[in-house]
Amino acid sequence: MNALDPLFAPRSIAILGASDVPGKLGTAMTASLDRFPGPVMKINPGRFFPTVAAAVAAEGIAPDLVISCIPAAMTADALRAAAAAGARAALVCAGGFAESGAEGTAHQQALSAVVRDTGIRLLGPNTSGFIAPHASLTATFVPDARDLEAGPVAVVAASGGVNHALAFALADAGVGLRLGVGLGNSVDVTQADVLDHLCGDDGLGAVALHVETAADGRRLTAAVRRLVDRVPVVAVVVGRSDVGDFARSHTGALATSWRVTRAALRQAGAVLVDDERELVDAVSALGRVRLPARPGSGVGLVTAQAGPGLLLTDALRTAGVRVPPLSERTVKELGDVLPDLTYQRNPVDTGRPSPTFTQVIEHVSEDPDVDVTAVYALLEPAALDLPAALQAARPATPLVAVVGGPPEQARRARAELGAAGIPCATTPAAGATMVRALAEDAANRSRLGEDIVSTTWPALALSDPVDEHTAKNVLAGFGVRTPVRRVCAGREAAHAALDELGGPVVVKILDPGVLHKTEVGGVQVGVRTHDDLDAALDRLPASPALLVEHMAPAGPELIAGVRRDPVFGPVVALGAGGTAAETLGDVSLRLAPLTANEADAMLDDLATRALFQGARGAAPVDRARLAHVLLALSSLGADPGVAECEINPLRVLPDGDVVALDAVLLLRDDQGGSDDA
Amino acid sequence: MNALDPLFAPRSIAILGASDVPGKLGTAMTASLDRFPGPVMKINPGRFFPTVAAAVAAEGIAPDLVISCIPAAMTADALRAAAAAGARAALVCAGGFAESGAEGTAHQQALSAVVRDTGIRLLGPNTSGFIAPHASLTATFVPDARDLEAGPVAVVAASGGVNHALAFALADAGVGLRLGVGLGNSVDVTQADVLDHLCGDDGLGAVALHVETAADGRRLTAAVRRLVDRVPVVAVVVGRSDVGDFARSHTGALATSWRVTRAALRQAGAVLVDDERELVDAVSALGRVRLPARPGSGVGLVTAQAGPGLLLTDALRTAGVRVPPLSERTVKELGDVLPDLTYQRNPVDTGRPSPTFTQVIEHVSEDPDVDVTAVYALLEPAALDLPAALQAARPATPLVAVVGGPPEQARRARAELGAAGIPCATTPAAGATMVRALAEDAANRSRLGEDIVSTTWPALALSDPVDEHTAKNVLAGFGVRTPVRRVCAGREAAHAALDELGGPVVVKILDPGVLHKTEVGGVQVGVRTHDDLDAALDRLPASPALLVEHMAPAGPELIAGVRRDPVFGPVVALGAGGTAAETLGDVSLRLAPLTANEADAMLDDLATRALFQGARGAAPVDRARLAHVLLALSSLGADPGVAECEINPLRVLPDGDVVALDAVLLLRDDQGGSDDA
Repeated sequence: MNALDPLFAPRSIAILGASDVPGKLGTAMTASLDRFPGPVMKINPGRFFPTVAAAVAAEGIAPDLVISCIPAAMTADALRAAAAAGARAALVCAGGFAESGAEGTAHQQALSAVVRDTGIRLLGPNTSGFIAPHASLTATFVPDARDLEAGPVAVVAASGGVNHALAFALADAGVGLRLGVGLGNSVDVTQADVLDHLCGDDGLGAVALHVETAADGRRLTAAVRRLVDRVPVVAVVVGRSDVGDFARSHTGALATSWRVTRAALRQAGAVLVDDERELVDAVSALGRVRLPARPGSGVGLVTAQAGPGLLLTDALRTAGVRVPPLSERTVKELGDVLPDLTYQRNPVDTGRPSPTFTQVIEHVSEDPDVDVTAVYALLEPAALDLPAALQAARPATPLVAVVGGPPEQARRARAELGAAGIPCATTPAAGATMVRALAEDAANRSRLGEDIVSTTWPALALSDPVDEHTAKNVLAGFGVRTPVRRVCAGREAAHAALDELGGPVVVKILDPGVLHKTEVGGVQVGVRTHDDLDAALDRLPASPALLVEHMAPAGPELIAGVRRDPVFGPVVALGAGGTAAETLGDVSLRLAPLTANEADAMLDDLATRALFQGARGAAPVDRARLAHVLLALSSLGADPGVAECEINPLRVLPDGDVVALDAVLLLRDDQGGSDDA
Repeated sequence: MNALDPLFAPRSIAILGASDVPGKLGTAMTASLDRFPGPVMKINPGRFFPTVAAAVAAEGIAPDLVISCIPAAMTADALRAAAAAGARAALVCAGGFAESGAEGTAHQQALSAVVRDTGIRLLGPNTSGFIAPHASLTATFVPDARDLEAGPVAVVAASGGVNHALAFALADAGVGLRLGVGLGNSVDVTQADVLDHLCGDDGLGAVALHVETAADGRRLTAAVRRLVDRVPVVAVVVGRSDVGDFARSHTGALATSWRVTRAALRQAGAVLVDDERELVDAVSALGRVRLPARPGSGVGLVTAQAGPGLLLTDALRTAGVRVPPLSERTVKELGDVLPDLTYQRNPVDTGRPSPTFTQVIEHVSEDPDVDVTAVYALLEPAALDLPAALQAARPATPLVAVVGGPPEQARRARAELGAAGIPCATTPAAGATMVRALAEDAANRSRLGEDIVSTTWPALALSDPVDEHTAKNVLAGFGVRTPVRRVCAGREAAHAALDELGGPVVVKILDPGVLHKTEVGGVQVGVRTHDDLDAALDRLPASPALLVEHMAPAGPELIAGVRRDPVFGPVVALGAGGTAAETLGDVSLRLAPLTANEADAMLDDLATRALFQGARGAAPVDRARLAHVLLALSSLGADPGVAECEINPLRVLPDGDVVALDAVLLLRDDQGGSDDA
């Protein structure tokens, strides 16, 4: 039995604060539960049973689940008593806890103590609850949620409001609900717990995940990773803009870094979307269909109207989905069933649809480069019975249909197709989101399951602070290329180093206390002669020592590093160098430790990747060498003593190798580092 | 009477190829027209009247509009005969014209000849037609379009399929249609013609514009500009990705540059959206509400559920819409009607809605910094009658509502609110698009109507090709700062120039045949001494002359230019310098001539604008000086002899002024330049 079964699959329920006074929370909850097939005990002194214990004594059965609709200040004591009377799980709906100041925080701590002391599992507080239609269990204060139909998609939302909004939007899209949960303040049960619970649910088809914050980053990603092997997970993360103040007020927690959270969820195998509308589109498709695991799935596109087909093609290509040219053989087969008037190489424009529409779909789906077949058509019953034609098709790939037409007719057609297992969108934009989600899920799965590369950690005894030379030595120990260099105590040694290395060299101050050498004039480049060197030394600020090193040839520049995220632990970053790219945030992120494929893929995430692939006459970067640097940083991040390491710039040399021209290595104050290692 | 009234408001209609054989185009069209109140003459030899002339003779009335459902090869002759019989407008539905090869192109040329010879106005060919519900006129081969309700929104689509898709999507959003037109191949009637026609339509509330291509760029933008004074225009442009082949096959025309078309439409006052779903959202809102013209409208946000409210806030802020903190007074007023548990500074989280919801909306709308009030609520009839509460409100600003809930109930609530003039969205994403569209329309209008700055054109007799020195002289004539420089015939003159100017100088080859000097080693920087100069001259390739100029201090770099777009004529561009920004396409575009405000606003379009506003210790750019450069380029673009001028780089100096470090000026082969001047 699953640990959260008493919560999500209870045999019996008690309602604290049950009521029949209109407008009250307890009244709404009582109404919501009126179809629950098991015993529901109403608790409310003076009206119903005075306590859970009294109800248990009278009914001879303990409630698996206690649902609390009473004020924050009374909740902890009531739950402690309920646990003593046999309750094993609780849902706490009221607000007024950590999201609302000091007093509320104290109430929340009292709830935590009840969980710790009694072992009761607690959902909330500050949530409208959860919905499990297949169990006729609507544990929310929105009684209309009783009418939601059972189906394959689970909603795991940070907030009760979003849980309901998504559940209703799914219903509008004709997709039923397996379980819909709003987490609220997550004093005990977290998103990871709910995902783990779902991992054991055979009725599950897909998960829609809404994330505002994650207290337990690695548990969350591990749970997603496990689920993705069984069912697709689609996630939306709040906080692209600065919504910190309001977010904090909402569930009493800091909003998590949007970028890191998205990167971590994607790395774990989730499909990421930008808003709740795309979330519904994506999960509607993935709840019905999953493509074989592979990168770069190809889409065959059949359209009965060229204009909307063009919108769909444009949206797919903009999203990076392949719409490959069809093979000679497919084009020939299409020529036999379509007039010669229209474009037929992909997209395939059928013109006004005729009874050959089914054959067109089949031919396209059989093309060797097609993994999913998308169809756009406006309902024109006089020309074609579209739902019948699509259901008659025996395609070699999954289908996605986009059906336009008069609202009621189109809704009926989409419902019919959905019931036949064909994901069905309202508009080209929605259809593009569906297909993109199928392709991304397939690509994600193709790279999961690979082994982590373990690099042997070189034994280095570092003392804080670490200077640039030492940081480069550490990186060199991992096989990262660094410039040939000499540490010089003073002017004389610098001249000797110039003689030894030959020009041009770079001369820098070597002072771990100065993090931004360039800004204080601490870097002098292009030093070729002893006169140059004297002039350069005159310009440098005072410093305990000097670093003289070979000047690297010009080339494109990257930034690579590893740092500790407060929620997710070590994160490896690769960004394009230069102020413009930094301003635009052109950075790829992955949780460490990296697999070899993950390290290799990071460059492809950059919007400016073309600059490192041989653009403008520069050498293309040696991807294996770049991946090696990222794996080295990943290993560094695994050391509990390392707080952060940044290579900036990491320059691409004419031979494609990359060289760390500057490096900063920061150690942690607490070298024990057990909290997120 | 409007020139297109015979087309869109005919008193009588003839159908060429009318039929009652199931599945035929002519049958569908005949069915579509069965509710048209005027005479409809069916033409089909052997079945109905043999010719339009025969019908006219029999009925004693000429058709204003002839709708052709016959094959491409027969169309021109039939239309010529119809025009002779008195027809003044035609709709040609068939495909098989310029979109489908040489034979079709000949058919299309024959149609053009009929238009030229007879003056008949022609919509199409290759379109499913148009819909005018208020006139009970459904001139499309989708008979179900008869049931579309009349309303305020016109659809002007490049394609018949998109016209229908948008009309049905608007119906699904509860928004009625004024006129829905699919242009097809636009042999005569263009989007500009339809927009001009709509400009005289008092029943119009808003226009949804779908653009694949524009043959007449300036006519299109002029028509949009005129319309925007009366009603809002929302536009989606196809071609963000490369869809050229398919697009060409679709209407026989090249897809227009996506970036230039979007920039031109925005400059003319249109609100730009990314896909057809956003188009429906935006036009649904703007068809009911328009904000006062002003930049930076503020949104007051009231939410009954914090989670969805957070999604809405995040989407608005990400789109650059202001969600300002409410005034002390507003916060105090809210404190009187809301419990102290929730966030109330904007967004205003009411918690579970109560009867004070109406007052909360009113208080927020009265805040001095709020121009539009957005409301999110899930339907909870037991807690609040939401439609009644919203309609009872007497807000000081327009409202936008986002209503979640059980699909049927929510649809009814949204319809009720829509009928009361309150735009109503299904999800936070849709609501954010609505509010963003209202704010953008208001901002667009605040900058329209300003005068063009005319700069006196300095009399310069230029001969092709123009070298860098001459190009800089031209720019200097417009008051653009250029480096102090000397043209030198050889080595000796260069040394004299160094003495005269003082170091450091830059030495370049002066050869108009070399467009990319840097790539051939033709630019040597940092020359301070005569030794440096000799070394630099040794490194330069052979050249007819040399340019020695003051080397500018370091600073952020821009690229500015003007070039001729084949569709829109002169376009001014401002971009961030450097390879990363260029790769990411961080460029602002405006059609020339520019107004002073337009020139000033271009910097704000850049994603990297912070780099030019004082980031990282650099001087902020002097905006007036930068605008002056853009206005100079705008004036240059007005000269019919100028093909293109690019300043790259345009460097920001420590005093904030900008200096043209390099400039290219290309003249046109045909200096008459009447085609797009």
